[in-house]
Amino acid sequence: MRIVVDAMGSDEHPAPDVAGAVLAAREWGDSILLVGDSARITEELSKHDIDGLYIDVVPATDVIGMIDKPSDAVKNKPDSSMHVGLGLVQQGEADAFVSAGNTGGILAVAMLATLRRIRGVKRPALTAIFPNLTGKLVAADIGANADAKPDYLEQFAVMASAYAEQAMGIRAPRVALLSNGEEEGKGNELVKETAPLLRGMTSINYVGNVEPKEALSGETDIVIHDGFTGNIFIKSIEAAASMTGRLLKREITAGTLTKIGGLLAKPAFSRASKYIDPFEIGGAPLLGVNGVVIVAHGRSNAIAIKNAVGQARRAVDGNVISAIREGLREA
Amino acid sequence: MRIVVDAMGSDEHPAPDVAGAVLAAREWGDSILLVGDSARITEELSKHDIDGLYIDVVPATDVIGMIDKPSDAVKNKPDSSMHVGLGLVQQGEADAFVSAGNTGGILAVAMLATLRRIRGVKRPALTAIFPNLTGKLVAADIGANADAKPDYLEQFAVMASAYAEQAMGIRAPRVALLSNGEEEGKGNELVKETAPLLRGMTSINYVGNVEPKEALSGETDIVIHDGFTGNIFIKSIEAAASMTGRLLKREITAGTLTKIGGLLAKPAFSRASKYIDPFEIGGAPLLGVNGVVIVAHGRSNAIAIKNAVGQARRAVDGNVISAIREGLREA
Repeated sequence: MRIVVDAMGSDEHPAPDVAGAVLAAREWGDSILLVGDSARITEELSKHDIDGLYIDVVPATDVIGMIDKPSDAVKNKPDSSMHVGLGLVQQGEADAFVSAGNTGGILAVAMLATLRRIRGVKRPALTAIFPNLTGKLVAADIGANADAKPDYLEQFAVMASAYAEQAMGIRAPRVALLSNGEEEGKGNELVKETAPLLRGMTSINYVGNVEPKEALSGETDIVIHDGFTGNIFIKSIEAAASMTGRLLKREITAGTLTKIGGLLAKPAFSRASKYIDPFEIGGAPLLGVNGVVIVAHGRSNAIAIKNAVGQARRAVDGNVISAIREGLREA
Repeated sequence: MRIVVDAMGSDEHPAPDVAGAVLAAREWGDSILLVGDSARITEELSKHDIDGLYIDVVPATDVIGMIDKPSDAVKNKPDSSMHVGLGLVQQGEADAFVSAGNTGGILAVAMLATLRRIRGVKRPALTAIFPNLTGKLVAADIGANADAKPDYLEQFAVMASAYAEQAMGIRAPRVALLSNGEEEGKGNELVKETAPLLRGMTSINYVGNVEPKEALSGETDIVIHDGFTGNIFIKSIEAAASMTGRLLKREITAGTLTKIGGLLAKPAFSRASKYIDPFEIGGAPLLGVNGVVIVAHGRSNAIAIKNAVGQARRAVDGNVISAIREGLREA
């Protein structure tokens, strides 16, 4: 297997990206293609013991940064690490692309300049994978389409189901629509129009509407929403978890006894925060483009990049792209 | 001041509703009108020392329950505690109405059968008031309008500003639109169309878009959204805070030392959870109807009901309805 890692992706690039690639190459023995500024990548690589690992450097002179507008980036930076890296997948020289870079940039370069969409896909979907109390939840779309239509959501359900089944090993993954009430008939116009479409599909395991609480408590494996709602959903969860943590810290450090208690309980806090750490999952797929693309968080550390490569290899192993094609044909 | 408390509102009615009314009558000395099943209310009242308090019982034979469809409830239960209670406000016999009952029922009875809307209001807005790290956040709409239009959101901003200023004492309250990015131009179609409208208003203190994190960290006093998005927003926050708490509890109780630490830190946990306890705030206004209506959570306890009465009296004291009328004229 050959996996491309965008060395210029993360906020702190190329250090975490290169270190993560090294960890992945060591763990799984795959061939890793590091794309970006050769000199800087080589310098980073010299800090690691890469003896016996399959790591190649592929030069790319441009970098699409967090402030670049996606459409400009596509036109004006044809030799970006994203263009070159996604191009390798497009040309069949690699099996997957992993990047912690500008999400809009990845989306635009993949859709408009390189891989393009899988035949029949109306819109691509950005996803997030995150832990709930009992397992993992796949959320789609989280931002590729701020406004969506019922037939887009229908395809997101098919694509996310194929991914959950093939790359995450979840048999007949449960799919739900995120809504403001669980009862059939609740929702905004989009949800109310989409629900009967999903209800009528035999190729997915649709379980109805869920509210945020049910999504987090493990009552579904996949939750579908337009990109605006999905973005608010995942960012609200992150913000509330972080606020809860900060509030607890403030109260714990406010007294001597509670401070001692906090110190004793520290391993529990660490385990809990590791459990909900997005970096443990590493990344999530961009669905609908004609190739395996895993998007990691900009703040990714080496572990996150390694785990994103892990996601990529499971997606390749599970033939996710074929499964999506198949799913769309059946739908 | 005369405040109506719906005795048949909360999930456990009438006990918490009556107990909360007694607490409020004692704390502020207002006249409280308890509306509902006279026999049950009288029985509950007999459990409290109400000597010297101004508490009257107003009979109403019907109860609009959590499973009643709002439109049916309006038609088929004309003698519900909501009809009678809201009717008292409509007829000028009381200054405000407080209920922990079916939100859709309150909305429907207020809008269609009793108070009706303030002249010029296009749509009413349900609100939530909840704590952030530095103060309180007013969120509108959280469910009255699953689908909204820019001019509805514009009015929500005006009404919530009037409320925050007059009933909560926040000078020139900051108003933001909830969006998937802070930059101007981010958002779905609704947000992108609403932003310039709010930007152009001199009567409100519009500060731009906020993401969930900024809303929770206190960068705005008011956050505006359609009812579907707002509902997902507040329910995601509740769900994530609760999941974080459960996860921590699971990890803390998993080891002996961490368990001891957890016991020592318990006062800090209590303070933190009290800080984010929705019952401490008690309730939030239904904006746009022609009278002060405070909606409390179905799970309200006596403290929550008392605090909801507190919200109501501050709204009456601050002449919120006049301020809203004024604000709408200026807009």
